[in-house]
Amino acid sequence: MWILRLNMTDANYRLEELPPAYKNLAGRAMTSTLVSDEVPPLCHPLGPHNKLVFSPGIVTGTAAPTSSRISVGAKSPLTGGIKESNAGSSWGSGLARMRIRALVVEGQPKDKRFQGACITWDAAQEKPKVEFFDAAEYTGKDLYEVYPKVYEKFGKGISVAGFGMAAEHGYGNAGIAFNDLAKRPSRYSGRGGLGSVMASKALKFIVLNAAGAPGVSIADKALFDEGRKKLLEALQTHDITKPKGALNSYGTAVLINILNEAGGLPTRNFSSGRFEGAAKIAGEAIFEGNKQRLGKEVYNHACSPGCTIQCSNTWYNVDGTERTSCMEYESTWALGANCGIDSLDEIATMIQLCNAYGLDTIETGATIGVAMEAGVIPFGDSKGVIRLIEEMGKGSSLGRTLGGGTGFAGKAYGVVRVPAVKGQGMPAYEPRAVKGMGITYATSTMGADHTSGYTIAPEILGVMGKQDPLSTDGKAALSRAFQATTAAIDSTGHCLFIAFAILDIASGYQGMIDECNGVLGTKWTADDVYAYGVAVIKKERAFNEAAGISKEADRIPEFMKIEPLPPHNHVFDIPDSALDSVHGEM
Amino acid sequence: MWILRLNMTDANYRLEELPPAYKNLAGRAMTSTLVSDEVPPLCHPLGPHNKLVFSPGIVTGTAAPTSSRISVGAKSPLTGGIKESNAGSSWGSGLARMRIRALVVEGQPKDKRFQGACITWDAAQEKPKVEFFDAAEYTGKDLYEVYPKVYEKFGKGISVAGFGMAAEHGYGNAGIAFNDLAKRPSRYSGRGGLGSVMASKALKFIVLNAAGAPGVSIADKALFDEGRKKLLEALQTHDITKPKGALNSYGTAVLINILNEAGGLPTRNFSSGRFEGAAKIAGEAIFEGNKQRLGKEVYNHACSPGCTIQCSNTWYNVDGTERTSCMEYESTWALGANCGIDSLDEIATMIQLCNAYGLDTIETGATIGVAMEAGVIPFGDSKGVIRLIEEMGKGSSLGRTLGGGTGFAGKAYGVVRVPAVKGQGMPAYEPRAVKGMGITYATSTMGADHTSGYTIAPEILGVMGKQDPLSTDGKAALSRAFQATTAAIDSTGHCLFIAFAILDIASGYQGMIDECNGVLGTKWTADDVYAYGVAVIKKERAFNEAAGISKEADRIPEFMKIEPLPPHNHVFDIPDSALDSVHGEM
Repeated sequence: MWILRLNMTDANYRLEELPPAYKNLAGRAMTSTLVSDEVPPLCHPLGPHNKLVFSPGIVTGTAAPTSSRISVGAKSPLTGGIKESNAGSSWGSGLARMRIRALVVEGQPKDKRFQGACITWDAAQEKPKVEFFDAAEYTGKDLYEVYPKVYEKFGKGISVAGFGMAAEHGYGNAGIAFNDLAKRPSRYSGRGGLGSVMASKALKFIVLNAAGAPGVSIADKALFDEGRKKLLEALQTHDITKPKGALNSYGTAVLINILNEAGGLPTRNFSSGRFEGAAKIAGEAIFEGNKQRLGKEVYNHACSPGCTIQCSNTWYNVDGTERTSCMEYESTWALGANCGIDSLDEIATMIQLCNAYGLDTIETGATIGVAMEAGVIPFGDSKGVIRLIEEMGKGSSLGRTLGGGTGFAGKAYGVVRVPAVKGQGMPAYEPRAVKGMGITYATSTMGADHTSGYTIAPEILGVMGKQDPLSTDGKAALSRAFQATTAAIDSTGHCLFIAFAILDIASGYQGMIDECNGVLGTKWTADDVYAYGVAVIKKERAFNEAAGISKEADRIPEFMKIEPLPPHNHVFDIPDSALDSVHGEM
Repeated sequence: MWILRLNMTDANYRLEELPPAYKNLAGRAMTSTLVSDEVPPLCHPLGPHNKLVFSPGIVTGTAAPTSSRISVGAKSPLTGGIKESNAGSSWGSGLARMRIRALVVEGQPKDKRFQGACITWDAAQEKPKVEFFDAAEYTGKDLYEVYPKVYEKFGKGISVAGFGMAAEHGYGNAGIAFNDLAKRPSRYSGRGGLGSVMASKALKFIVLNAAGAPGVSIADKALFDEGRKKLLEALQTHDITKPKGALNSYGTAVLINILNEAGGLPTRNFSSGRFEGAAKIAGEAIFEGNKQRLGKEVYNHACSPGCTIQCSNTWYNVDGTERTSCMEYESTWALGANCGIDSLDEIATMIQLCNAYGLDTIETGATIGVAMEAGVIPFGDSKGVIRLIEEMGKGSSLGRTLGGGTGFAGKAYGVVRVPAVKGQGMPAYEPRAVKGMGITYATSTMGADHTSGYTIAPEILGVMGKQDPLSTDGKAALSRAFQATTAAIDSTGHCLFIAFAILDIASGYQGMIDECNGVLGTKWTADDVYAYGVAVIKKERAFNEAAGISKEADRIPEFMKIEPLPPHNHVFDIPDSALDSVHGEM
């Protein structure tokens, strides 16, 4: 197992044996450890001392279901703290199959001409090798134009990580795009501006070709297989994750109607929890719309190899051609309900533009909501939204007032109603209507982030038993448990969506643990897995504190404490002491 | 003595007796105490819970020399922490003469139509009274156009505090303008975005007419007079502050040549400590230029009543008409050397525009330096600078990328060389060349601020004995002593420039203390004055900590630690432990 370092100061690389202390680290545990160990917390996120770390999860690259996640970590230009953002892509499994547990991009060239790195398996030397190539020709272009050219140059068997124009402009809102199974630049480590960190290294692409690679070493194949089967069975049994279940039928946008019903769908820059146009942009509407346009029922597809949940959708034009993939819940909400827009076609155009420019859809929608609050364009103006995204792509002055993300745009326009924590825009759950989620937003080491402690599972979906979303009772403990467990799941390499099944079906949870023990040769119990997650978060938290992010940053914006949210007319009423207990008692 | 509260939620006011606990608080001690006591540290700076506090100093409004300072405090939209910024103006002495020790602007109307407040002395009731007036007609206009109209409406005897278009746009860079003795809007509480706080209250002007007011109550007139004479003698003796001395002849811009010689004049966005055009923009060049254009020597004038230092200058056109007032060292540096510009005429135009729009000149020049670094316009492009300032005035998208200040513009353009601490742009002294000043920038409760601990006095000017500016020895203690002493001087109501004289001439220092004891009836010693300053800073620091600004924010930007600065090729090498000792050992 290796750590591969690309030093961009003079474009060379070094392959290091994985140190014994890092043996069981992977995914988020690896990225957060390397960032903690090697990045000065007060360095400039776009300067020479930040490092960008990629790490596949423990079981990524194996036959474990739904496990092709790749974690990316660095000091974030958006939050100023540590960041881990993961995506599903063949890129992650390719890296794992080459036995690269961590890829570290470090240094910074004086000449900012973009380069690419191509990593292949050197069969003779039995190790990966890297070749750099000039990538200047791909600069300033739409990623839907550029990715096919990269495939043309390096062949169909590759995977690609790269960034778009948003990162070239140095935005806080700039993701890293990974290819999906149809080679589109549509799977994103979107949050926290990691694309701009990669751009600051002048490394436009990392191309992988894992052909000939030996694959992931598995210490106990029998145990691994046993675990894999248990997990697979749970996934294929649970209503949310099974074939033709909620996610496979309606995609993540199945949540639109559910959250709207719960009064927790943030609408028009978090001024209401209900959107009158919700049904028109819901997962069910996507399913029915596609059925009408194609004349048949279309179930969703996998975003990455080996996923059995298959929640990734495509939205089709009236003529049956593809309009965009993927219409995620978060994207559809951010550019839809949050902007007062109820047209799937228009939202699809916006998502396509975000992917083309390498923008995070959540941050983009949350930012434009703030710009609408400021009167830059009116709520509901879909043409206006498209124009604003185009300006972000261009790097115009208007685009730059938005490119820094939600908190930044709030300052640019002097807006008070700014739904952000640590500068990062809030995702599609209203803290005033789903209190546990608000605690996660406030206290996550990542800024406002739903994936880092998804209490929606019990609060809205009834996973592990239903909890009242409006109640404050026990919600700090709930968020804490979800945050720690999530940090562990994010390290296994599984998609977080296995959580629905494994939290309800105990054998599924054991299956995930068995898989990890099988790969690593460990004897982890469920308690060990929890402790592993806690250790990850403690490292992240320590980094943030050293970067100047104190517990006073673990707060929900003031307006949510003083403005009641329709329809339930609740404010965010979790006391600071409860917020502080999330980490204080972890 | 009163606290006057203007509640802008429904435009009413309340006069309160000064509470006994606040009896000896004035100036910065008062604003920082009221902000600490009444403003929730995590409130939005432009929201309803922030408060804007004005307070004249202890001796402001008396015959004490050079004492017409007005302190303004609030939670800053620029730094996110507490802010005090003071200016010299008849406005401060007017407030004091009406026995208003603090004026608190609070609340926020739903209707954002601007109002004004006119405060006059009600002789019958023997107290101040307030009338509100519609000020919508003054919105969106140049302050040089607006101030004369306000004088026209309310008469020549008034003083005016207001804000310009920068604040109407909600910028982090937006000051509060006070009238000078020629009724120009040229005396500024410039730093930290206090203008935008005032604009968020929809209070466009506060007009004062102190006619008939009883004046400041003095407990021991004899002691006060004795003190006043001692201080006056020191001021009139010291080479820096005496008539036709350095400040009276050449203004604050006398420092340009001195700092350039010391290699500490930040040039072209802090990339060098020497500017080849320094001599052309120095105080001596202003003096000589005016002499040439007017055919006679012109010495400087007072910015506010009772100032004997008289360092405020005017720059004249070739035809003898006024071009702008005042050409301060900071403004001339920020828009000159820092932007690579060596034309006094062009710099004067820029300063005039900043005053017209209500922009802080330091923040504006530091921000434009960053924009030049990003390639928005080239260094040396004075027409370009004028255009950028005009865009800031308009509130265009380009203007908004700059209006948020230095740290903000750095993010807008993805720049790494950003000379700011806590988001606030650095003034005209290079931390790498004047190490004590760097410590002040890093550790001040105000963000990068020269006035909060002006170690230039010993490090460059030899006041109290010369200290090597490049040495790190004892500089934390030096900055600490200056910061504490300054907090006390900022509370007396004297201009900080008395420090040159009173630090060198012991009887002058005693004179300042005698004046305060005379007014308040206290028996303060020099130790008490120091302790008073320490108490102010401890309050400010506690507010900042509760606002989420931890000691990790007390740092100089990374680039200054890794890039040696010509000509001395020093980096900023003060260890973090020394920075932490400033407050840790206060």
